[in-house]
Amino acid sequence: MPHTVQHGQPSAEMQQCIDECLNCHSICTTTVSYCLQQGGKHADAEHVTLLLDCAQICGTSADYMLRGSHLHTQTCATCAEVCRACAESCERMGDDSVMRRCAETCRRCAESCGRMAHAGAHH
Amino acid sequence: MPHTVQHGQPSAEMQQCIDECLNCHSICTTTVSYCLQQGGKHADAEHVTLLLDCAQICGTSADYMLRGSHLHTQTCATCAEVCRACAESCERMGDDSVMRRCAETCRRCAESCGRMAHAGAHH
Amino acid sequence: MPHTVQHGQPSAEMQQCIDECLNCHSICTTTVSYCLQQGGKHADAEHVTLLLDCAQICGTSADYMLRGSHLHTQTCATCAEVCRACAESCERMGDDSVMRRCAETCRRCAESCGRMAHAGAHH
Amino acid sequence: MPHTVQHGQPSAEMQQCIDECLNCHSICTTTVSYCLQQGGKHADAEHVTLLLDCAQICGTSADYMLRGSHLHTQTCATCAEVCRACAESCERMGDDSVMRRCAETCRRCAESCGRMAHAGAHH
Repeated sequence: MPHTVQHGQPSAEMQQCIDECLNCHSICTTTVSYCLQQGGKHADAEHVTLLLDCAQICGTSADYMLRGSHLHTQTCATCAEVCRACAESCERMGDDSVMRRCAETCRRCAESCGRMAHAGAHH
Repeated sequence: MPHTVQHGQPSAEMQQCIDECLNCHSICTTTVSYCLQQGGKHADAEHVTLLLDCAQICGTSADYMLRGSHLHTQTCATCAEVCRACAESCERMGDDSVMRRCAETCRRCAESCGRMAHAGAHH
Repeated sequence: MPHTVQHGQPSAEMQQCIDECLNCHSICTTTVSYCLQQGGKHADAEHVTLLLDCAQICGTSADYMLRGSHLHTQTCATCAEVCRACAESCERMGDDSVMRRCAETCRRCAESCGRMAHAGAHH
Repeated sequence: MPHTVQHGQPSAEMQQCIDECLNCHSICTTTVSYCLQQGGKHADAEHVTLLLDCAQICGTSADYMLRGSHLHTQTCATCAEVCRACAESCERMGDDSVMRRCAETCRRCAESCGRMAHAGAHH
């Protein structure tokens, strides 16, 4: 298993995934406030729920990797799915630089988590 | 989709799953302290990590259902897997009433989450 | 220190506080969705932020007690303040049974946490 | 109130505090695994509990700031206290580069959170 955490030395790929998850957690948490302040379609219940979902699973997934848990492949797989759904919801908001930045962050996190989930499935 | 949360009125099955998740979160969080106090095999890194993993995904999964998120089927599926792994680890600790109670709680939560994940997959 | 957790046997008062915190966490998390669906003043950024704040500190405070942490008096004191602010925000929403129920739950949690914080300060 | 979050533009001081909190959350979460693997005094229940406490309140405090919550001064004050207690516990572990790094991170986070709590108290 190439991705088992040796203390203080996660693989470069896992460290990148941890960073993407923490970053996506932060952006989604901040974006909830932005959307509530914007109101209108930005404050749509389903959209805000997705942002909250994404922030939470990203934090959970990062913690599994930080703890060196063997089960991070499970949380990374779920995280990748939630990030993709959140990115799509942000992209549907149209031309808004905040939503675009959030969508891009979610896409990067989804790709990184997808690689971690896939790598784990082979070992 | 029978399990969509109508505010304040999740289905009886979903409400039960929320309760199982919150209960399992609580038991696992308390059991970490018990295991650290016991020391020896109870404080084995892999076992304690599983308890922390289980507590966290149970909390996450409960929140998805409480928020009425469509993606609760994903977190419930992952939660069921982590709960099973945690139950097995507790069962390996042998004859200890605290570990047995934790294992039973994890098994019940795994079954309940498994049903939610399965129900969602059909809709 | 009367409130030190002996494993599996928190004092009756602490167990009640854990239950109030978990209940308040659940109600506030569900109420966020209700408010977003209602829209209008219910979806006001400051109000929804308070509900998210309250849900999170209640979960944190419950976990400190479940872990038997000596520092639960600190999180309980903060939790009491956040619960009071959240209750006031819910009460300002006017005649709405969901908001009233949320406010009452926050008030009960604030009182229970206040007692825990005070008890700890004397020991 | 100089520290009110304008979306996407927390003050430089608040942004630094968010970064310190997220960093301290990560280090403490990883250090739990290290301590469990080391065993002995590193796996002492009180020490590991403090690391878990610190990881959680740092995550909570970061989220309050990311959400632009007015109540971040409360969570930052509590976070500063928990970080100091965690740093002391790490320092008592003696000459160990992992514990020293964790202690230093906790000290920096405590100072940053202390400044945020103090600044808020004046406004």
